[in-house]
Amino acid sequence: MDLKNLRIDGKRLRSTLEEMARIGATPGGGVQRLTLTDEDKQARDLFVRWLKELDLKVTIDEMGNIFGRRPGRSSDLAPVMSGSHIDSQPKGGRFDGILGVMGALEVLRTLHDHGIETERPIDIVDWTNEEGSRFAPAMVSSGVWAGALERDWAYDRTDIEGKRFEDELIRIGYKGDAPAKKWPVHAYYEYHIEQGPILEREGKTIGAPKGIVCLHWYDVYLEGEANQVGPTPMEGRHDALCATAEMILKVEELPARMGGNMVATVGEIQNYPNSRNIIPDKVHFTVDIRSWDDELALDAWDKLRGDLETIARRRGCPIRIEETWRVQHSPFDEKLVQRVLDNAEALGYPSLHMVSGAGHDASYMNQVAPTAMIFVPSIGGRSHVEVEKTSWEDCEAGANVLLHCILQSANEGGRP
Amino acid sequence: MDLKNLRIDGKRLRSTLEEMARIGATPGGGVQRLTLTDEDKQARDLFVRWLKELDLKVTIDEMGNIFGRRPGRSSDLAPVMSGSHIDSQPKGGRFDGILGVMGALEVLRTLHDHGIETERPIDIVDWTNEEGSRFAPAMVSSGVWAGALERDWAYDRTDIEGKRFEDELIRIGYKGDAPAKKWPVHAYYEYHIEQGPILEREGKTIGAPKGIVCLHWYDVYLEGEANQVGPTPMEGRHDALCATAEMILKVEELPARMGGNMVATVGEIQNYPNSRNIIPDKVHFTVDIRSWDDELALDAWDKLRGDLETIARRRGCPIRIEETWRVQHSPFDEKLVQRVLDNAEALGYPSLHMVSGAGHDASYMNQVAPTAMIFVPSIGGRSHVEVEKTSWEDCEAGANVLLHCILQSANEGGRP
Repeated sequence: MDLKNLRIDGKRLRSTLEEMARIGATPGGGVQRLTLTDEDKQARDLFVRWLKELDLKVTIDEMGNIFGRRPGRSSDLAPVMSGSHIDSQPKGGRFDGILGVMGALEVLRTLHDHGIETERPIDIVDWTNEEGSRFAPAMVSSGVWAGALERDWAYDRTDIEGKRFEDELIRIGYKGDAPAKKWPVHAYYEYHIEQGPILEREGKTIGAPKGIVCLHWYDVYLEGEANQVGPTPMEGRHDALCATAEMILKVEELPARMGGNMVATVGEIQNYPNSRNIIPDKVHFTVDIRSWDDELALDAWDKLRGDLETIARRRGCPIRIEETWRVQHSPFDEKLVQRVLDNAEALGYPSLHMVSGAGHDASYMNQVAPTAMIFVPSIGGRSHVEVEKTSWEDCEAGANVLLHCILQSANEGGRP
Repeated sequence: MDLKNLRIDGKRLRSTLEEMARIGATPGGGVQRLTLTDEDKQARDLFVRWLKELDLKVTIDEMGNIFGRRPGRSSDLAPVMSGSHIDSQPKGGRFDGILGVMGALEVLRTLHDHGIETERPIDIVDWTNEEGSRFAPAMVSSGVWAGALERDWAYDRTDIEGKRFEDELIRIGYKGDAPAKKWPVHAYYEYHIEQGPILEREGKTIGAPKGIVCLHWYDVYLEGEANQVGPTPMEGRHDALCATAEMILKVEELPARMGGNMVATVGEIQNYPNSRNIIPDKVHFTVDIRSWDDELALDAWDKLRGDLETIARRRGCPIRIEETWRVQHSPFDEKLVQRVLDNAEALGYPSLHMVSGAGHDASYMNQVAPTAMIFVPSIGGRSHVEVEKTSWEDCEAGANVLLHCILQSANEGGRP
């Protein structure tokens, strides 16, 4: 057959996604499949079974990353790789992560059904702990595999109950023997839901992000003076929560002040002693700043930091700020991004050249190999929630784009 | 001897307070003696031992309130009562509550030492669970004794681990047989630290509150829309924490807007899902409003409520408000308050006619009997914290005022 006419099986993709969604299903219609839990193990077991049904060579590395290799005609050529992650947020959705793994599986099943050989091998991958919601930070195992993070440091991460990453990896039987160490990859494609409202708003089916925005994380610690609220006049109070309220609004107005092209968020707050009749004397909160323009984000932080310090000084609330994590914006491979756009056009799907506001395993893979992502619309822009949804038509469309991107890269002789 | 020259023993009072402060002592110099814990039991056992050393008749009622009666010449006359509470806040101080119980004990020891008889009996009391920080609400057992709260409802209050009040009362062996039911009381005096900065600021030793301010508690629940922060533009967000930040500042500015004579505080906040990369979609926070002027406080709440609803509407964050608890301001008995001021003057201590911003067991006792309180300065206005402190000289001064107030009331024939 003419490869141009090849299509994945949308119905099979849907039923595969639905079968996966039963593992860790929540009453609210989402899934809770936190990394290295029993639900994660159950989903991994099913995934490995499906890989074996395709006669793929399954490799599990020491970070629990699961690879399945489909041979190419030239086994000495670097493979094309595609995948994402099986783990979810607490009360997360049925598409985030898993769509990219099941989408790649559907591509391999399609090639298998039609007996299509490729020049290069194809690797499908499930990266352990992309979400980082049980063990921080996020994307830890693609980070180790790419050489950006240390394995033993990752092993020592603990969850809220103090359980170690490595111990939980062993407990569910997914600490493999293979080293978590990068090998040459010809091209990496990650298929994912957009997790934002832009594709839907613009009426597009396929998004081709030119890369991932920068990500700057800060932790702010404020001190106030605790006192019984009744006998303590307003004047002379040092209320750490009131200071925080002012600061949260400064964070919120930051993007408009910088002229847009940026988001800034306070997602997490801890207040102490958190008693209704005691003036708060300790607050911790986080700041998350993202932009395609690293300099703009740094400039914004300088301004914000000044504001926070001014508020703290005026209110007599000592402040301590940690610059917790900074990842520069990460531009994907221009040729591969163009290939995503070209394939969308060839398949008749309206597409958009955009940016990714979220980090993905593709961020680390982008340090190892030419990388691109394929986005499909999130209904209402909702993600990391149980109502997260992408239409089955769009799931199918994205998988078809993935199919042709993989095929073209896998039949290239040299680097793209 | 001329009773006018009688003084308590300041050194003994200090060593008594120091001995009590060892029970539940915290590394930070405070005490943690939460109600109905082992520490509470230990302190109660010591208190009861001290009562028995004075040959007082000890009664423990079904709420665990501990009374010690010193007989008067006329056992048919209503007694004078004085006391406070032995329990503490988590990481609380060494003076809150316990000073009023040990102060009254020191008064009885002084009368005992000098063989002084009074016309009326004198009751000393430790009220169970004044703080309300383990089992809400506060002042529950004086409330039951006064007939303002139901015993069985109080029994069913649970702590954060789900343990019932009654079960814990039984566990520590302090569920007594006597009914928790008021008897006629001629006068009730409660000696307490101020827990605010006013006496210190004004250079006064003794405070005579004309009563307790009103106390209005509200609970506010906000909903937003959770989304991954990176891919969700600022525009169109419904961030429940940003809405809360605006509301907290409205609460803070309320007293100034109403022309003072009021405090308003947000002490408690819960944010969900409280993850640094998810837009908050649920927040609960509390509002505490206190004033001597009930109408002003209600008027303030009307204005604030309107503001909160406007903010919620503008931000598209549905709001739900509960009016949780309202206690009217409680004026003490004017003659007894004057007696506190007169005794302070006679003893040479500078004094201040003021209000109490905090609730006390005296609030409920005020419904049963003529009531007054005696305040001594809190250094730096600090209370409900480990560094809570009152000078030993001031502790002694307050106990001397208490001594003479009790003596005068206990030697009165009729009601004051």
